[in-house]
Amino acid sequence: MEILLNENERIDDLELNNLKIIQNKNYFCFGMDSVILSDFAKNIKNNSNVIDLGTGTGILGILLSAKTNIKQITGIEIQKEVFELAKRNIKLNNLENKFNIINEDINNLKKILKNNSYDVVITNPPYKKINSGKISENEINLISRHEVKCNLENVIEHASFLLKDKGEFYMVHRPERLPEIITNLKKYKIEPKIIKFVYPNKNKNANLILIKAIKNARSFLVVEEPIIVYNENGTYTDEILKIYGKNI
Amino acid sequence: MEILLNENERIDDLELNNLKIIQNKNYFCFGMDSVILSDFAKNIKNNSNVIDLGTGTGILGILLSAKTNIKQITGIEIQKEVFELAKRNIKLNNLENKFNIINEDINNLKKILKNNSYDVVITNPPYKKINSGKISENEINLISRHEVKCNLENVIEHASFLLKDKGEFYMVHRPERLPEIITNLKKYKIEPKIIKFVYPNKNKNANLILIKAIKNARSFLVVEEPIIVYNENGTYTDEILKIYGKNI
Repeated sequence: MEILLNENERIDDLELNNLKIIQNKNYFCFGMDSVILSDFAKNIKNNSNVIDLGTGTGILGILLSAKTNIKQITGIEIQKEVFELAKRNIKLNNLENKFNIINEDINNLKKILKNNSYDVVITNPPYKKINSGKISENEINLISRHEVKCNLENVIEHASFLLKDKGEFYMVHRPERLPEIITNLKKYKIEPKIIKFVYPNKNKNANLILIKAIKNARSFLVVEEPIIVYNENGTYTDEILKIYGKNI
Repeated sequence: MEILLNENERIDDLELNNLKIIQNKNYFCFGMDSVILSDFAKNIKNNSNVIDLGTGTGILGILLSAKTNIKQITGIEIQKEVFELAKRNIKLNNLENKFNIINEDINNLKKILKNNSYDVVITNPPYKKINSGKISENEINLISRHEVKCNLENVIEHASFLLKDKGEFYMVHRPERLPEIITNLKKYKIEPKIIKFVYPNKNKNANLILIKAIKNARSFLVVEEPIIVYNENGTYTDEILKIYGKNI
């Protein structure tokens, strides 16, 4: 298949079922968080109808289409340039029948999508509050990383609108936002059921949080075993190699 | 000094500054959670005025008196028999000048203690909801382990009443209660600042959570490096040996 690359773009091999991804080196490129989140969500039930809020290059949908037997995934992406890139990634991986994408603001979804209609919401949203941390260098990255167009509450509110009763919500975020994550999940009746922390090594603070929550479920949380990324000698731990699908 | 032991009591050596503790084998005996909590709180500022909500045998006050330079600790214990035991433990360790104890219900503290008067609240409260889990065999243990006389919200509400502005709250609890812990801390204006999870080993779910929160502080949470109790070969990890004050 012929795929035209624009300036500053490259194709990376995902080393999984021959999947590939086009990324633009000036935009937000996918990282370990997307890979870990897709692994955390790999037990999504067969034939689920999934929606990805803030889809970026489409990486989560591409990984989930390889790791699960979902029926359909819909990606929502507000930025036109990023949406166009995700469309080409879907084509590159022959996923047009399974993965559709909508160029829309999450905050408009109540107008165009049906209430209680998805089995699963998955999201790797912007992590940072506006005016916090380092400001990214261009507007596209700013919107991908900072809560310029939607904040944590917007994401959770719309997830709750879209999910069926007992539908599942999967998110990766930063541990410093945990109190807000829990407060908002409770507010919108999505009950936190599983949390998992990612620590760069066993002597460092956690730098990612994975959360699975279920709409209208009863309250009982499990904090699962930690994911530790690096051994003391700087090599990847076996659990990370396994998440990346390497034989160990 | 002559200390009379009642039936079913024994004296254990805490292997720290010659401290000792009387425990009754039919009641709740202190465990790793008290030792880990006192270590987590070991940087309490010098000359702090501390209160321990639900003091049990007095173990937290005894450990803190050895590990910190606090000015004064007040223990609150609702159960008369346990209160009497704690009093004997204070005497046994010559801590009468530093550690006083009150036989009272936490829910009555607003009547007898002053608002905004403590630098630190520390607590190892009953972990379990009423009607959840295994019911302990006798009434004294039932009250120590289950929320019969006070629940999580009562503890946090009274902690907030007692703490000075920017006063510190330290608690050990079960990870499954995390959403409620956060919801209640937020409700009573004690901001979660540091959370640390304890995992029995690196492949098991967390079984304890340590939390430090500060009254009226701004919102920013750090999830610190994990505490892992056992190595894969079943021996204690170096961090646990260090917490127990062993040379490694």
